[in-house]
Amino acid sequence: MKLLEEKIQKDGRVLNDNVLKVDSFLNHQIDPQLMNEIGKEFAQRFAAEGITKIVTIESSGIAPAVMAGLYMNVPVIFARKRKSITLTDDLLTASVHSFTKNESNELAIAGKYLNENDKVLIIDDFLANGEAALALVKMVQQANASVAGIGIVIEKSFQPGAQKLKEQGLRVESLARIASLSNGEVTFINEKMEELV
Amino acid sequence: MKLLEEKIQKDGRVLNDNVLKVDSFLNHQIDPQLMNEIGKEFAQRFAAEGITKIVTIESSGIAPAVMAGLYMNVPVIFARKRKSITLTDDLLTASVHSFTKNESNELAIAGKYLNENDKVLIIDDFLANGEAALALVKMVQQANASVAGIGIVIEKSFQPGAQKLKEQGLRVESLARIASLSNGEVTFINEKMEELV
Repeated sequence: MKLLEEKIQKDGRVLNDNVLKVDSFLNHQIDPQLMNEIGKEFAQRFAAEGITKIVTIESSGIAPAVMAGLYMNVPVIFARKRKSITLTDDLLTASVHSFTKNESNELAIAGKYLNENDKVLIIDDFLANGEAALALVKMVQQANASVAGIGIVIEKSFQPGAQKLKEQGLRVESLARIASLSNGEVTFINEKMEELV
Repeated sequence: MKLLEEKIQKDGRVLNDNVLKVDSFLNHQIDPQLMNEIGKEFAQRFAAEGITKIVTIESSGIAPAVMAGLYMNVPVIFARKRKSITLTDDLLTASVHSFTKNESNELAIAGKYLNENDKVLIIDDFLANGEAALALVKMVQQANASVAGIGIVIEKSFQPGAQKLKEQGLRVESLARIASLSNGEVTFINEKMEELV
């Protein structure tokens, strides 16, 4: 997605070979116009999938997911992160480890919001090692719903997440795919392809 | 806001005289069409205020705030909740106690996203005791920015938050104002006024 790649080049900050900070438009400050375009793009890419629900994680997944939900006209559910979960309610749960923050969280979704007829689009801001997306897949499967696809705003393609998801037969659509963050520069997959041609 | 009041009557669950659960359309599952209308309504009510930024809190404030930001064409910043904050960055911070969850959190906003020229609209999902809104006001003031108003999705008018904010001279616009949750029923301020006439 051209608009997003331009925004990343302009306002993203490469902290090291692994970390891209986008807290000026996605993770802390949010650019609503960009989220609107991102929502539209997800809706177009998954238009044929008969999506009934979108599932994301608090907090950074919410803005792109809600915009996608607006254009797809389906409800959005955000999984809550907890240090520990008391299993009082009928909950779908999974554990997720964040390598960036070096901490583990329990994720929870109220079971009543997903059922076996749901075709779920999972949306998240980043895809790196795939921990968060795989946890969401697990929770959707716990509800006997099906995962119709995974929509990612920024994929760090040099990390194994996308590959892991595709190996499970899942369709992954990432709006920006980063080949490398070396030398303080963002190189997108497309650019690299063009260089090779 | 009629549409919101109808949604609360239809899908809200009154747990007791103080607690209204709206996790089927606002706090866990989100209704994007409703958020869109809520965003439009905030944009209309604060159209004359020259708003430059919207500030909210993760997670439930994000959806209504981003929709308002879309219609007002301004960036949205969400304060992050932490158990404790390491003051490495230039951060605006405040402590907030949640009576509902009986826990305290530190809120943080990166200082670089607010400055003395900003006219800030604070948006949050609920207003009860006003703890969260007052903490956000404090953070905006730390940045020497001005608070142009406070937009609330659901105000529990029988609790003191709205009054506290108004006593500080702040403009509060709440889209649904709940007079009472007694007897398992939601009574809105408007309805009560009509009964009295």
